[in-house]
Amino acid sequence: MIQVTKASGELEPLSLDKVRASLSRAGAQTETIDKVLLELKPKLYDKIPTREIYSQVFKLLDTYQPRQAERYTLKSALFNLGPSGHPFEEFIARLFTAMGYQTKTQVIIAGQCVSHEIDVVVQKGKDIDLIECKFHQRAGAKCDIKTALYVQARFEDIAQKYPGVYRQIWLVNNTKLTTQAIRYGRCKNMGLLAWHYPENEGIEKLIDQFNLYHLLKLGYSEK
Amino acid sequence: MIQVTKASGELEPLSLDKVRASLSRAGAQTETIDKVLLELKPKLYDKIPTREIYSQVFKLLDTYQPRQAERYTLKSALFNLGPSGHPFEEFIARLFTAMGYQTKTQVIIAGQCVSHEIDVVVQKGKDIDLIECKFHQRAGAKCDIKTALYVQARFEDIAQKYPGVYRQIWLVNNTKLTTQAIRYGRCKNMGLLAWHYPENEGIEKLIDQFNLYHLLKLGYSEK
Repeated sequence: MIQVTKASGELEPLSLDKVRASLSRAGAQTETIDKVLLELKPKLYDKIPTREIYSQVFKLLDTYQPRQAERYTLKSALFNLGPSGHPFEEFIARLFTAMGYQTKTQVIIAGQCVSHEIDVVVQKGKDIDLIECKFHQRAGAKCDIKTALYVQARFEDIAQKYPGVYRQIWLVNNTKLTTQAIRYGRCKNMGLLAWHYPENEGIEKLIDQFNLYHLLKLGYSEK
Repeated sequence: MIQVTKASGELEPLSLDKVRASLSRAGAQTETIDKVLLELKPKLYDKIPTREIYSQVFKLLDTYQPRQAERYTLKSALFNLGPSGHPFEEFIARLFTAMGYQTKTQVIIAGQCVSHEIDVVVQKGKDIDLIECKFHQRAGAKCDIKTALYVQARFEDIAQKYPGVYRQIWLVNNTKLTTQAIRYGRCKNMGLLAWHYPENEGIEKLIDQFNLYHLLKLGYSEK
């Protein structure tokens, strides 16, 4: 039985079902999936890094369904915006522009107690929203309740200084949100946008809908 | 000229004035300081680690003025409560007990949106306060505005669920607070207690005033 070496260094048995599922999530057709798996098999060897499988699968998928290959690598493409969070903020500004907002990045706004640097300020019609972007460098890092709490406190400090001016604050994250962060954010009427959240309107869906893959390729990347 | 090796690995010229000042801050008498420095000199050598100077000075001071030696090592004694933050929470509970409060640690309290784990709940008369403890593992790490913001948001979520029940929330930290964190905390009527803050009533002064050095020695340390 072939084993794969995970990013953590752990070994686990190769699962072609997992590869099949990841291709399916990216929108590959059954026929394409079968071809990709057939061509992948001779490239596999014992203790192959998962990263290498992923890279091979991308190349194969790219020859048959390039658009789905972009989706397949979207998560990594977002991580590649790092290491700092600034390119992610610029990317989110472009995403909101595509959604019909006017945007400004890194705006200093006074609160009742202190001044705050807001990553992106967006406006559509009369509605002005504030956006706090959280960029995580690795999969598995979730945006937790402490982040949701401080984002809300920041909004309230500003709202107390300028009552009625800003509609809401958004917490936008390239990975997932914890259940507690979601519960708190919804309760406070915070805008939430993250990987797979909201369901079927997550950041991966919006990037696909507005076809913003080229921004990740051309990149604001610092590397 | 003798150089010293700092914790960071950097070299800098030895300054006996700095040693003198640190002894003076700990309350050592001029006469004692002179004796300590005289006995310290033959122990010095080029590129001596600052940590070793510190340890030698402590031993010498301890022979002349043991109470002042305790003060001299208080900052490290607090760091030694780590690595987790739990022993620091227990220590802070004992400090508030010494100040005449009834205390409970790790209390779950429902907020309007989510439940929160409060490190220490303290009561004196009718006043019930909540305490959030922040333990940092190394000198130089400051408690910043984001922490102050989330602590305030946590308090407001609880205050919205139980109006009028809790007087205020405290942010207690074994290192320093940033200027922004102090400004925000004061503006929100947060209790603030940290290294050298409030001036002349900082955590180091309270530990001295209530003579709680023995708790750091016996220790809740996990090591």
